[in-house]
Amino acid sequence: HGMALARMGNELRCQCIATHSKFINPRSIQDVKLTQSGPHCKNVEVIATLKDGREVCLEPTAPWVQLIIKSILAKAKSNTDTPL
Amino acid sequence: HGMALARMGNELRCQCIATHSKFINPRSIQDVKLTQSGPHCKNVEVIATLKDGREVCLEPTAPWVQLIIKSILAKAKSNTDTPL
Repeated sequence: HGMALARMGNELRCQCIATHSKFINPRSIQDVKLTQSGPHCKNVEVIATLKDGREVCLEPTAPWVQLIIKSILAKAKSNTDTPL
Repeated sequence: HGMALARMGNELRCQCIATHSKFINPRSIQDVKLTQSGPHCKNVEVIATLKDGREVCLEPTAPWVQLIIKSILAKAKSNTDTPL
């Protein structure tokens, strides 16, 4: 069901067999890893680790995926804006 | 020298002690992990794995860091644009 993830680690092949198509609430996401394409895999891969420990492959071209990434970075900005 | 990384894994604390301030060529980056702030750490953390295996903490608010993330996502777009 779109959660297809081959294995973790720096493998010499693609990590994602399929991507999760439904929206995932950013609040349930712990971290997002963006992997460049390269000799190991021709696709850019986006793997989210959810707060419950599951790992989910996301579609890097999906607008909501790009929004999640933007929102994480935006939070970093507002963190530094707060006075010490 | 800004490479300070506490340890990998889903630890219950911040992973980055300091962030690398100098520009890193996107070509030398294998993947970038964005970790949300949360109870384990009040900072948004951006950790890049370089192609030589080193892990580097990056400053999430630095414009060049945001550009690197954008460029990885943009590559995903151009991949899907190419006809099969």
